[in-house]
Amino acid sequence: MEKKMVETAREELQSIKLDETDNVAVIVNEKGGCEGQSLSDGTILRENVPQCHKVALEDIATGSPIRRYGKIIGYALQDILRGGWVNEFMIALPNAPELKVNSAASEVQMVMPLSRAYTFQGYRNPDGTAGIRNILGILPSVQCVVGVLQQAVKILRQDILKEYPYVDDVVVLNHNYGCGVAIQAPEAKIPIQTLKNLAVHPNLGGELLIVGLGCEKLQPNCLIPDGTNPEIIVLQEKNGYAAMLDDIIKSAKKCLDRLNKRRREKISVSELTIGLQCGGSDAFSGITANPAIGYAADLLVRSGATVMFSEVTEVRDGIQLLLQRAATAEVEKKLIVEMQWYDHYLTLGQVDRSANPAPGNKKGGLTNIVEKAMGSIAKSGTMPIVGVLSPGEKPNRKGLIYAATPASDFVCGTLQLAAGMHLQVFSTGRGTTYGLAMAPVVKVSTRNELKDKWRDLIDINAGPIATGEASIKEIGEEIFHFILSIASGEKETWAQHWNLHNDLCLFNPAPVT
Amino acid sequence: MEKKMVETAREELQSIKLDETDNVAVIVNEKGGCEGQSLSDGTILRENVPQCHKVALEDIATGSPIRRYGKIIGYALQDILRGGWVNEFMIALPNAPELKVNSAASEVQMVMPLSRAYTFQGYRNPDGTAGIRNILGILPSVQCVVGVLQQAVKILRQDILKEYPYVDDVVVLNHNYGCGVAIQAPEAKIPIQTLKNLAVHPNLGGELLIVGLGCEKLQPNCLIPDGTNPEIIVLQEKNGYAAMLDDIIKSAKKCLDRLNKRRREKISVSELTIGLQCGGSDAFSGITANPAIGYAADLLVRSGATVMFSEVTEVRDGIQLLLQRAATAEVEKKLIVEMQWYDHYLTLGQVDRSANPAPGNKKGGLTNIVEKAMGSIAKSGTMPIVGVLSPGEKPNRKGLIYAATPASDFVCGTLQLAAGMHLQVFSTGRGTTYGLAMAPVVKVSTRNELKDKWRDLIDINAGPIATGEASIKEIGEEIFHFILSIASGEKETWAQHWNLHNDLCLFNPAPVT
Repeated sequence: MEKKMVETAREELQSIKLDETDNVAVIVNEKGGCEGQSLSDGTILRENVPQCHKVALEDIATGSPIRRYGKIIGYALQDILRGGWVNEFMIALPNAPELKVNSAASEVQMVMPLSRAYTFQGYRNPDGTAGIRNILGILPSVQCVVGVLQQAVKILRQDILKEYPYVDDVVVLNHNYGCGVAIQAPEAKIPIQTLKNLAVHPNLGGELLIVGLGCEKLQPNCLIPDGTNPEIIVLQEKNGYAAMLDDIIKSAKKCLDRLNKRRREKISVSELTIGLQCGGSDAFSGITANPAIGYAADLLVRSGATVMFSEVTEVRDGIQLLLQRAATAEVEKKLIVEMQWYDHYLTLGQVDRSANPAPGNKKGGLTNIVEKAMGSIAKSGTMPIVGVLSPGEKPNRKGLIYAATPASDFVCGTLQLAAGMHLQVFSTGRGTTYGLAMAPVVKVSTRNELKDKWRDLIDINAGPIATGEASIKEIGEEIFHFILSIASGEKETWAQHWNLHNDLCLFNPAPVT
Repeated sequence: MEKKMVETAREELQSIKLDETDNVAVIVNEKGGCEGQSLSDGTILRENVPQCHKVALEDIATGSPIRRYGKIIGYALQDILRGGWVNEFMIALPNAPELKVNSAASEVQMVMPLSRAYTFQGYRNPDGTAGIRNILGILPSVQCVVGVLQQAVKILRQDILKEYPYVDDVVVLNHNYGCGVAIQAPEAKIPIQTLKNLAVHPNLGGELLIVGLGCEKLQPNCLIPDGTNPEIIVLQEKNGYAAMLDDIIKSAKKCLDRLNKRRREKISVSELTIGLQCGGSDAFSGITANPAIGYAADLLVRSGATVMFSEVTEVRDGIQLLLQRAATAEVEKKLIVEMQWYDHYLTLGQVDRSANPAPGNKKGGLTNIVEKAMGSIAKSGTMPIVGVLSPGEKPNRKGLIYAATPASDFVCGTLQLAAGMHLQVFSTGRGTTYGLAMAPVVKVSTRNELKDKWRDLIDINAGPIATGEASIKEIGEEIFHFILSIASGEKETWAQHWNLHNDLCLFNPAPVT
């Protein structure tokens, strides 16, 4: 042990300071920094500091601000000497920023279109949208039918899907809603709108089979998308289990027949909708993976595509940064309305934004929600924000969109799907096995060590940005081109390869009855 | 059509009036009653009335009470003439009963033990409890791991379970909780307590495998039941997907080895915990299936067993009936506290108890929640209520327990499982395909027509009670003995036979973050 520490001490100690005004830096080396090692600015470590964690670059007196990303992430709860480890127990959370508009539009930059018009090989849907997968979606109107539905889908997947080589999958849009819920409650519009929008997801090729029980609150006809004519099966109308199975399979086959005739064609990248998310974040997320994803987001927006970022509790403390990028006064206003809605929602539940971050974030060096927010926002790139979505809504224009959702990975994923997301780019520092059945999820690691450990789960590694082996631009371009390959069906993500996905999880702030 | 109606008119018209003071009766005949047909009391139908729906037995003036079960279920919104159809649009909902104690214990009857001591063939668990199934339960601490877990369970089910002939199943205790949730919120105790109690469900034989991600809010060690030593796997500690799969399977096999050594033995019925629920109810539920279930509940309680009934919104309007049966002042007090909690919860969501019943209930002749409540309470039988559970809690004594849960079938089912329910008895009028993976669900139909239609889904038919072909006692005894056969593994329910079950659905009144 003694020997090992000496060896570590001999290694060059790498650290990252993000802004000239920062008074902390983050340790890059996998084994962390040891007492006595020096940073490039001459700071000498007073104690061992783990990887991703912060070191004071100057003496910080009790009550003084601690700065990272050029932003105050908190105030010292004790005197911290230069070279000391700055951990979560030493930092007081600042008050949440006030929700007010201040001279916004001034800082909004122009979108410069890319000189090259990128395309991908996708599916043209009957409603004019484009898809990147050719999936049969089956929507239960209520959880009670899911037992029967899963048995039918088992048969469809095992015995029938092979007759339809151009269809990618059969997916049950499984959810816990539909009955025993107050569908007239004001906030019930969120889960209901979410289900209606999931039903017309562009990766479902314009086909839909709805399976209802018959007596449920949320009747199947409440879920029929405008201008469509889905197959509907009501179990209470059937003569027993065998008839239910037969009829579900018969209706599914009608949809599969139509889906199987579809072929990929050349489609402009401007028709893509890409969702961005992070989960299991660490202090590298805001340095490596998220800025690289932000670079890719800029390329997508400049190609005319739609890009969504989300997670209210993770932008709340950086809201001024978003307000500065609002393209219109309407966007500014809706950003504030969504933050206020969420503040109120948390207050009703007697909690506040300090409920985020998670234990793993803290282990990963993320002290509090302010620091986490700064890193999280980095993945939105630099383009102006042209739209804001309430939970369950879909964008009505292209460009960079802020989709207000909880930060919960699976709730955010479900809401981004409902907003029409074709594909999600997901950065992770600690690692997560999260995935979605309706859209590929591209995993981007923040550190080399995670990619080394999870070779068969991480799609792209942004770790070389921290070690200086790659630039944000290089990894950003890699992400952009990987997105196009996945969208074209030329490559697959690891999660697709292993068929790993989470369940849908509706956001329902209304009562269960 | 004309001809058919004449034929129907020739059939004898059956109707049921439940209490001497009732001024409505319910039509029994499958095709309903036709204009001109007479009831046994001489009432002549003024119009066609569907099966299960109500007919006025006397003239009812605007504002006058409408009585069923000897109870005011509402007030006439218009003059209704004798022989008229009394439907939901003619009845105003009365105010909810006040929540106050009134001279309770007086009406509590004694429990007379059955003369015969019944037993079943069950499993003795290491903690001293009994089980009726021998299932390996795998508990994810967070939804992010479920994709990997499902792949591991697929392998376990397809390739490995056959080596363990004495193990019934491998079940993932899948849920949407664990991260992106405010675990410090006051109401978070409900989902967390639910998960902890599910983890020690008596049908899991004292074995448990917990699979966590590593960075989640609800760390696996928060879920370890007191005094147990479960297998724990943390995916972030593993070297990639293949290692995750291997380790889950390796740990599962350790549990399967132990479970496979267990054999059934004779156990007293007093060690059973039976849950009662209804779903897709109709106006027959309170006449046939629920009273028969109530009869079986009395037999179980008299055998020393634990019986739970639930569904707050479905007892709220009959709360005085429950208060009268409270065995102690403490039970009375907690009944009121639980009703108040739910009233407040609904108010926060800006709804009230009128959010129940569902459309299918109304089609089935249930006008409003008062009428539904009267029928729902019938399944609790006549024994004194000796305990009241908050959502997520477990009973600490035997006898009839009121477990306060939402009426949502899948939420109530999950909470009754968390309370240690071995088996659920479920009455249905419209029919439901609901089921649970951790406990058998016995389906009892309220009408002959449903049993005829769903021969391969309904386990017991209480319809003959309505047509006078069987008594409540006869069907009640049939249910009691069927419960013992299922508990002993001698018979299986239709849902077990077809492997039909819903997902668990946690009740989480706290915020998502």
